[in-house]
Amino acid sequence: MKIFSGSSHPVFANAICDYLGLELAKSHTVTFSNENLLVQIDENVRGGDVFVVQTSCPPVHTHLVETLIMIDALRSASASRITAVIPYFPYIRSDKKDRPRISIAARLMADLFETAGADRVLTMDLHTAQSQGFFRMPCDQLQGAGPLSERLREEREDNWVLVAADAGEAKDVGRFANLLDLPMAIIDKRRDGDDDRARAVNLIGDVKGRVAVVIDDEIASGGTLIEAATFLKQHGATKVMAAATHPVFSSNAVQRINNAPIDKVLVTDTIPLPTDVTSDKIEVVSVAPMFAEAIARIRTGTSISGIFEPDIVREILKKGHIAD
Amino acid sequence: MKIFSGSSHPVFANAICDYLGLELAKSHTVTFSNENLLVQIDENVRGGDVFVVQTSCPPVHTHLVETLIMIDALRSASASRITAVIPYFPYIRSDKKDRPRISIAARLMADLFETAGADRVLTMDLHTAQSQGFFRMPCDQLQGAGPLSERLREEREDNWVLVAADAGEAKDVGRFANLLDLPMAIIDKRRDGDDDRARAVNLIGDVKGRVAVVIDDEIASGGTLIEAATFLKQHGATKVMAAATHPVFSSNAVQRINNAPIDKVLVTDTIPLPTDVTSDKIEVVSVAPMFAEAIARIRTGTSISGIFEPDIVREILKKGHIAD
Amino acid sequence: MKIFSGSSHPVFANAICDYLGLELAKSHTVTFSNENLLVQIDENVRGGDVFVVQTSCPPVHTHLVETLIMIDALRSASASRITAVIPYFPYIRSDKKDRPRISIAARLMADLFETAGADRVLTMDLHTAQSQGFFRMPCDQLQGAGPLSERLREEREDNWVLVAADAGEAKDVGRFANLLDLPMAIIDKRRDGDDDRARAVNLIGDVKGRVAVVIDDEIASGGTLIEAATFLKQHGATKVMAAATHPVFSSNAVQRINNAPIDKVLVTDTIPLPTDVTSDKIEVVSVAPMFAEAIARIRTGTSISGIFEPDIVREILKKGHIAD
Amino acid sequence: MKIFSGSSHPVFANAICDYLGLELAKSHTVTFSNENLLVQIDENVRGGDVFVVQTSCPPVHTHLVETLIMIDALRSASASRITAVIPYFPYIRSDKKDRPRISIAARLMADLFETAGADRVLTMDLHTAQSQGFFRMPCDQLQGAGPLSERLREEREDNWVLVAADAGEAKDVGRFANLLDLPMAIIDKRRDGDDDRARAVNLIGDVKGRVAVVIDDEIASGGTLIEAATFLKQHGATKVMAAATHPVFSSNAVQRINNAPIDKVLVTDTIPLPTDVTSDKIEVVSVAPMFAEAIARIRTGTSISGIFEPDIVREILKKGHIAD
Amino acid sequence: MKIFSGSSHPVFANAICDYLGLELAKSHTVTFSNENLLVQIDENVRGGDVFVVQTSCPPVHTHLVETLIMIDALRSASASRITAVIPYFPYIRSDKKDRPRISIAARLMADLFETAGADRVLTMDLHTAQSQGFFRMPCDQLQGAGPLSERLREEREDNWVLVAADAGEAKDVGRFANLLDLPMAIIDKRRDGDDDRARAVNLIGDVKGRVAVVIDDEIASGGTLIEAATFLKQHGATKVMAAATHPVFSSNAVQRINNAPIDKVLVTDTIPLPTDVTSDKIEVVSVAPMFAEAIARIRTGTSISGIFEPDIVREILKKGHIAD
Amino acid sequence: MKIFSGSSHPVFANAICDYLGLELAKSHTVTFSNENLLVQIDENVRGGDVFVVQTSCPPVHTHLVETLIMIDALRSASASRITAVIPYFPYIRSDKKDRPRISIAARLMADLFETAGADRVLTMDLHTAQSQGFFRMPCDQLQGAGPLSERLREEREDNWVLVAADAGEAKDVGRFANLLDLPMAIIDKRRDGDDDRARAVNLIGDVKGRVAVVIDDEIASGGTLIEAATFLKQHGATKVMAAATHPVFSSNAVQRINNAPIDKVLVTDTIPLPTDVTSDKIEVVSVAPMFAEAIARIRTGTSISGIFEPDIVREILKKGHIAD
Repeated sequence: MKIFSGSSHPVFANAICDYLGLELAKSHTVTFSNENLLVQIDENVRGGDVFVVQTSCPPVHTHLVETLIMIDALRSASASRITAVIPYFPYIRSDKKDRPRISIAARLMADLFETAGADRVLTMDLHTAQSQGFFRMPCDQLQGAGPLSERLREEREDNWVLVAADAGEAKDVGRFANLLDLPMAIIDKRRDGDDDRARAVNLIGDVKGRVAVVIDDEIASGGTLIEAATFLKQHGATKVMAAATHPVFSSNAVQRINNAPIDKVLVTDTIPLPTDVTSDKIEVVSVAPMFAEAIARIRTGTSISGIFEPDIVREILKKGHIAD
Repeated sequence: MKIFSGSSHPVFANAICDYLGLELAKSHTVTFSNENLLVQIDENVRGGDVFVVQTSCPPVHTHLVETLIMIDALRSASASRITAVIPYFPYIRSDKKDRPRISIAARLMADLFETAGADRVLTMDLHTAQSQGFFRMPCDQLQGAGPLSERLREEREDNWVLVAADAGEAKDVGRFANLLDLPMAIIDKRRDGDDDRARAVNLIGDVKGRVAVVIDDEIASGGTLIEAATFLKQHGATKVMAAATHPVFSSNAVQRINNAPIDKVLVTDTIPLPTDVTSDKIEVVSVAPMFAEAIARIRTGTSISGIFEPDIVREILKKGHIAD
Repeated sequence: MKIFSGSSHPVFANAICDYLGLELAKSHTVTFSNENLLVQIDENVRGGDVFVVQTSCPPVHTHLVETLIMIDALRSASASRITAVIPYFPYIRSDKKDRPRISIAARLMADLFETAGADRVLTMDLHTAQSQGFFRMPCDQLQGAGPLSERLREEREDNWVLVAADAGEAKDVGRFANLLDLPMAIIDKRRDGDDDRARAVNLIGDVKGRVAVVIDDEIASGGTLIEAATFLKQHGATKVMAAATHPVFSSNAVQRINNAPIDKVLVTDTIPLPTDVTSDKIEVVSVAPMFAEAIARIRTGTSISGIFEPDIVREILKKGHIAD
Repeated sequence: MKIFSGSSHPVFANAICDYLGLELAKSHTVTFSNENLLVQIDENVRGGDVFVVQTSCPPVHTHLVETLIMIDALRSASASRITAVIPYFPYIRSDKKDRPRISIAARLMADLFETAGADRVLTMDLHTAQSQGFFRMPCDQLQGAGPLSERLREEREDNWVLVAADAGEAKDVGRFANLLDLPMAIIDKRRDGDDDRARAVNLIGDVKGRVAVVIDDEIASGGTLIEAATFLKQHGATKVMAAATHPVFSSNAVQRINNAPIDKVLVTDTIPLPTDVTSDKIEVVSVAPMFAEAIARIRTGTSISGIFEPDIVREILKKGHIAD
Repeated sequence: MKIFSGSSHPVFANAICDYLGLELAKSHTVTFSNENLLVQIDENVRGGDVFVVQTSCPPVHTHLVETLIMIDALRSASASRITAVIPYFPYIRSDKKDRPRISIAARLMADLFETAGADRVLTMDLHTAQSQGFFRMPCDQLQGAGPLSERLREEREDNWVLVAADAGEAKDVGRFANLLDLPMAIIDKRRDGDDDRARAVNLIGDVKGRVAVVIDDEIASGGTLIEAATFLKQHGATKVMAAATHPVFSSNAVQRINNAPIDKVLVTDTIPLPTDVTSDKIEVVSVAPMFAEAIARIRTGTSISGIFEPDIVREILKKGHIAD
Repeated sequence: MKIFSGSSHPVFANAICDYLGLELAKSHTVTFSNENLLVQIDENVRGGDVFVVQTSCPPVHTHLVETLIMIDALRSASASRITAVIPYFPYIRSDKKDRPRISIAARLMADLFETAGADRVLTMDLHTAQSQGFFRMPCDQLQGAGPLSERLREEREDNWVLVAADAGEAKDVGRFANLLDLPMAIIDKRRDGDDDRARAVNLIGDVKGRVAVVIDDEIASGGTLIEAATFLKQHGATKVMAAATHPVFSSNAVQRINNAPIDKVLVTDTIPLPTDVTSDKIEVVSVAPMFAEAIARIRTGTSISGIFEPDIVREILKKGHIAD
């Protein structure tokens, strides 16, 4: 078994190796003056069971192509099995044709990974459960809800209410609500006449005098979240928090969160945080131990389904802290 | 252009042909004593642009295999393009791995259609928009929301509220709410301890003194709907109606609806109604004109996206009535 | 190594496990009210060498789809090799285009198994030897002739003659004739004018004063066999027996055999016998030991070709009796 | 529409063109000193519907590879549809695994044609009807029985009997027997102890005082035929004739036929006759008109199934004579 | 026929349209804050013959992924044929494994285009002729040598000598030498001990007192060219010019060329020149007319091979000037 | 691990086995009178890691088809991994479209090997490095330059000059020049007017008074080499030698070399020498040890890249001598 890392998130790859007591396998990527990449695998991998750790973060397309080239290099170097470990899968939000003549790009990405030579994928929170069906190869999908709930549980109060920023997220919020035994509310958005953007027009459920915790699978520009926070405050929420798996934090999301009526944002480390700006409001729960444990189980042929149990999640996270 | 019909829903295939001013193309299926099918295409199809109309209804698997054999027969008889017209797609609810070691059977079905030789699929309401990504071939997905909303609009009152029977349906209900400019409510379900079934524990939003219209993409055994109706009455709804695209009506769904506190159920004809039991409460809106119009546009290479506009929907339905 | 069973023939799957000294692996199939199936694999299979035992018997199409879903579930659960063990392969008689614009459905079935994710197939007597070429994946084909001949040999008399009920079966009968060192005869059938069905018009060879043993690969409705028996009696056969691998016994075949001028019918257990009617005339030779032995050899990478030798067949059948 | 010819049988390709009133399209094959071939297509084929006429005759493998290269050249030169017209398909007798660890080479050949880029195949008499299932692409299979029967009919006497030289051929002989309304007989062969070759041991049916016409799909070395002829004469046949579709005539088959107790051999021209030796006994019926007519129907999308009717066969052959 | 343009080189796409007298088809690409792209095709393309014009220039990977998404969108919007028009193909220099465990990325790119749904590729100068074999789909490869030679011919003097900057380029230089009837010379480079970079150590052939014209397929950072120019001057060249198809001009190539002992650089417009820096030394010959003519011929099914003739090249270029 | 040999070069396969201390695995090929081959694998290979050794030499196409059938037989006999060991790959010079409407046959060959079921290829000197990209499966390419240089080094003098017989070979000659630290020269060929053949018109570099060693990857008819030798002598070379990996020696190459102004020809044994004619001028260096070592490393998953180092080459060759 060998674990390789792309350029996107070496800290995460190393955390996985620490948990497993392994050295990161050697490879390096050269960028030529014409932007082309040369991925050089620096260790023999013939017949090996290899894992490539790479997430989708800027420069998004360069990281994507690096992954494909890396997988192709491993394949032609005769690795016997290649698992693409992609904490945040590229284009995962492009999962439907909500207007005519567009690509379901997430499905295309799955096909590209297969073409490059990946034998399986390990990832987390594919936005909708259905997207797992985009993969012809076996795809294990971890859930951020486990580790995030564990962290939320430590501070949980009875006056909390979990909020979906949009009806489409209601189902995912339901999973958290079930795990934490809390009520939920949903922000009802509508499109107005010619306007292409949906606006919050109605709150289904009640947040008055309560701490509202907005749940989502990712925070991109933060716009949706900040709009929701403002709306919830208007409806009487005493405090607004947020929890999301993927800290995309595009544009100046972090700065905007710093300035918004949000008290705390809990995310995981599937994506590295921006280095040019920080925020006291943002707290990170590492899911590297979850990935490491899943890799160990893929390697030994043990069942992965067990690691969704709250007890096991807790144990893995604890073991992860020790590995650090 | 030739339109063939499988054994499942010849009335629907004929309605499509009526709209298009065509004769149904000739084929017949022989069932041998060992249950094996022989599909005989009775017309030359060399180089032809053929459409196979077949829905998923009992006997579900026999109809499925009949479709695959029919497509294979057309392919080996040298049809140049084969479009599978599947008003209700088989196994479309098996679209995710919500427990370990199961099949995403809807994706498997899409692959089976491709293996048999289908070049494209035309269908309606695939439960989730993401399922369209299961198809590698082009897949046009019509929406029941258009025709159903048109019918609802005729009776719509301001005191109506649209209800999602489960958080997962919230998004689809939102589409109707937008089209009809109505408020919505969501039934919040939870799983209790060891119990595998979710129970309605909470109503998000308000239905008191209002007419509640439960929106779903399909009604199978009717259990979810009837439970929702009872729950909504308990929360003060004056009247409960339902609208759904696919009238699966499995088990004795019709009888149970007859006996339940539901005033009216609006469905389409993507699936033939049971013939052994009837109900005054159930009203059917035909979507055959929508399919016929889509087929005409596929044939001539005209854009299909236009037919999602309310105006066009109305026009097609009107033309459909005349064709009858 | 794990052996799973579909719903069609659990007795057979268990007999295989008995021979191998294994427990049947756990899985179960749920049938929803809309007839859709949910196959749940109840054991971890990551990296495993799994076998799925399923035969083709009524409800034929439901069993077929169950097999495909089961294979897909095992594949996406990361089994490393999946062997479909199909004692009687579905649609195996649809192996040629004897009229225009039909499907060679047996080839289609082979493709569907490959699409679902099967890596290899183990089956018995594919009607014609050529059908093995329908499979792109490795396909091991066992022969019922071995076990059936062993049983016939015990009663064989010199006045027996082996009979092909139709010229197309002459070759297979030749194999038995060679093994048992007996003469053969062939019933010559012709089509008359507009009539679609062939009628026996001539007997090639001689059965007068002899015991005629009709050999075939399957008995479906029994019509062919009973017609042959009557014809042979007319030509002076003193007694008519039959031996066939696959007891399809569709329609009321068993009842009709009971009433026909046939003294004995020898079949194998590739298909379970009907439970609603019995016959003293029918004797079953179990081929489960043959399948079990083949599975053992696939597992260990030993040659399978050896098990076609009469000596080895005898030994396997004896070992099978002890396992019972 | 363009018709190209490989090197194997230009006379046949030209006869097809004559029937269709077309010029043969231009291409040429260069053989380098190292035996490698360069196939140069000498006409523009972009978007064209092209047919490649090539049969399997010595040098068998060179012709095979020439076909594959030719198809690949046409494909990469952007032909829109490529039909491989293969009167005698290579390796068609290798259609089953009658011993362990061999290739079903006929299936492999079908796959190689698909890999090279053929879109469809047009051929004649694939030894067994099942072999048509080896092709994933549409495959039209013509029958030599039609033209051969037409020719036999002209001389047919009531004292003829059709003979299968082996039980495996009984079915095909049955087709001729039906068309010509004649009785049939079968030579029963057995394998003796260690001997690998089957010997004729028994005649099923009667030939005494009759003209025996041995029917087969091909004559290779002639050994089977000559052995049959001798055997039939021993059993009292007054005269022995033979009819077969494919005149493989390998080794010195023609010479041996000249010296054997055979009065006449009727074959088609799917394979060119050897040029170094002639025989008065051999008569050739051209099937080029059958192929030409099939090509015309493929081109225009007319049904091919019609051309199996005796009336139509007669008409096509007549038209063929005029074209000459 | 519709011609779409990606974001990389709209000027080139428009020049093609001008030549053909067409409007550029409408599409637009939205870049979200997380860098993800949404390609929206703004015209109906059902059944259409569409061309996507996109070159490989910075941001290289974003343009690559945009192309793939665009093709996928067109495919799922039911375009009947999609030709990727890629003047400069991405990663074309990564065409061999000159060290262990790397990817032949150019082949991978070809596979990715096929996965996305391209039916054919039209490109220019794939570095080596062999790379055309990386494409399974038809690939038409235009040559920059034609238009560049036409331009050079206008100034050609007898004292010119064509120079390959490296033995690997000798063959391509030979083509120019043949077209222009000029002698050639080759710079012999060697690797020294541990040094990874090859250095010019020897001049094969003679440049003393002559104008040396360095020929290459692309100029990237300009390093190779400038080193060659210096070396040639040292060996007595009176003047150094260069001609290359692809003006990659990475890093500050233009600036470096401005400062180097090079008198003139002739390139084509397969890649847009940098906009931040200009050079009087650089002259551009447009090959848009060549592409436009090829597209016209692909569309009508006329042979493309003709356009490699010097006469035709001249005519096309002239027609191109008028179109401007 | 089992090593099988095709009919082309059993001596080479045995030399590999000797090096590895293995017995050649048993198989045999029967050629029927109609030229068809039956490849019978005579040992069990279930689950085995098998290697098929076969080179491309006359009869080229028969050997090619034998290889494909052999691989297919092994695949369907359930070998787990099949490596095609092809010292000289068929059609490797047909690697580009240097005229319109021809096949890149080398790519086609790679596809045929994949279709037959090969999992990987091991070969030597594919004419151009790019051809490795024709293979989708992993392809290890050994280099003749190593062993040939080792042998040349023993006799090397400072007055040697390495010569490329054509600009296209300049790069390969450069590799030898680097290894042996020698100068190089290139023969400049041109095409004249209508003439299709290139003639040597110019010598780039200097050979006067020197020993010229012509380097190429193969010697086919010897025409190019002999023309070069004559040309070099005319330009003052004192002696002409040649070194090439593949001794194709087609037509009467050996005889022509015997009569030509060439002093010595060094080749490897990737192809067996003609048996009907010998030459004192030709010396053979065996590369069987290189292949054997590569096979050993593939088997054990050790890196192959190491064996390109001069030191390792020397060691392997020495070990090979002992194995003899």
